[in-house]
Amino acid sequence: LTALCIRSLPGLPEVRAGDDLAALIVAALEAEEALQNGEIVAIAHKVVSKAEGAVVRLADVQPSAQARTLAAEQDRDPRAVQVVLDQSQELVRAANGVLICRTHHGFVCANAGVDASNTAADAAARAAQDTLIVLPADPDASARRIRARLRELTGASPAVLISDSFGRAWRHGQCDVAIGCAGLAPLEDWRGRTDGAGLKLRATWLAVADAIAASADLARAKDSHEPVVIVSGLERFVTAEEGPGAGALLRPAAEDLFR
Amino acid sequence: LTALCIRSLPGLPEVRAGDDLAALIVAALEAEEALQNGEIVAIAHKVVSKAEGAVVRLADVQPSAQARTLAAEQDRDPRAVQVVLDQSQELVRAANGVLICRTHHGFVCANAGVDASNTAADAAARAAQDTLIVLPADPDASARRIRARLRELTGASPAVLISDSFGRAWRHGQCDVAIGCAGLAPLEDWRGRTDGAGLKLRATWLAVADAIAASADLARAKDSHEPVVIVSGLERFVTAEEGPGAGALLRPAAEDLFR
Repeated sequence: LTALCIRSLPGLPEVRAGDDLAALIVAALEAEEALQNGEIVAIAHKVVSKAEGAVVRLADVQPSAQARTLAAEQDRDPRAVQVVLDQSQELVRAANGVLICRTHHGFVCANAGVDASNTAADAAARAAQDTLIVLPADPDASARRIRARLRELTGASPAVLISDSFGRAWRHGQCDVAIGCAGLAPLEDWRGRTDGAGLKLRATWLAVADAIAASADLARAKDSHEPVVIVSGLERFVTAEEGPGAGALLRPAAEDLFR
Repeated sequence: LTALCIRSLPGLPEVRAGDDLAALIVAALEAEEALQNGEIVAIAHKVVSKAEGAVVRLADVQPSAQARTLAAEQDRDPRAVQVVLDQSQELVRAANGVLICRTHHGFVCANAGVDASNTAADAAARAAQDTLIVLPADPDASARRIRARLRELTGASPAVLISDSFGRAWRHGQCDVAIGCAGLAPLEDWRGRTDGAGLKLRATWLAVADAIAASADLARAKDSHEPVVIVSGLERFVTAEEGPGAGALLRPAAEDLFR
């Protein structure tokens, strides 16, 4: 009997630039139960970005001519558009006030993952809504760092997964996907293997890290401050080595039949 | 503390056309624990298709000229290509031996969801690999029927979700998505609501049913015959009414910025 258990972690304080996120997680866990080997610590990227200071104040941004043109067309703040462009290697599409971008990491998502909500630590900045939060510069490296620190603090060696909510082609709504991971096999490859009856399986290459990200997001209500979720029961995907990271999930355009 | 528990259901026999799938599930559950209100019964579509007889014998298929041309270009069996075309309202792309189709339901997926693996009940047909399994004709209706029958047999009123593994744009690997559901809110709409700090949330429209489908798939190993998974802890998405079904997840092309 395979059983999976996913629990959100209450008690994490508001995260600020320079905070030791792993230490905050361990402190919050202490009221609960200790981290186990083989568990997965799934973290909504915002707190990782905050801890790393991946935040931009609109007041500091000088919009380019391109940003001003796009902002006028899409009814957006030119400074916010500039922040989105700064995070992007390619503007895939601009419509309905949304910029679909390919980020410098290679992720294709709305507004290059730049987010305005729930960012500023102090009430004054929040009231002004003048701070944007961007994706971590290298989310796989962030996951490795957090994992190393969790190991240092607890002795346990969990996997770490960092997620964001992305829209999808063809389907309504967003699902969380993995933007960084460490100690986790992001893809499970059954291509060419046979099923229980000895038949060759159809293309079966499971995006395990994305499925875990989506699962973890179900355990947190969007309005509760619970960015951290602990997943148990997926030991088979947790690895001693760091692994290829979530970068392995990026599909080169030439191989992409779905867009 | 939000906690989600997902367990796969062992002991389901090989499903055959005409089988009462709900009754098989209830029988398999008896060795475990009874179904509870608010639980979600997540079913890989193959057993639903099998029970409904949504199966095509290649020997019965007459390929059209279009199917023969496509098959030659993509190095496929012309009869299998014909089955895929029969399931499709639109051929989106053909490359690398894969046909990306929009099915009559509106799903965009590889080979219109037609699957060769692990279908035939008898060894002779399996050896010949001459049987293809297609998606249920109306998976939301299938989910409603299974739900009604589960309620009749157990008195409990769980949600029912039917899933398939779909490839995605931009990202490697497949994730399970919902192709049918009943008694479940498929999307959770936070657009326009505010977060804990009173700030308006960024576009936040969660594809709950797809996240549940992806979670359920993590609880089954691909080579174990465990198509049925029980999800507990998501009572907030389980509804008394049937709900809009997974059809609500289909994004009209005109609104689709991601492809």
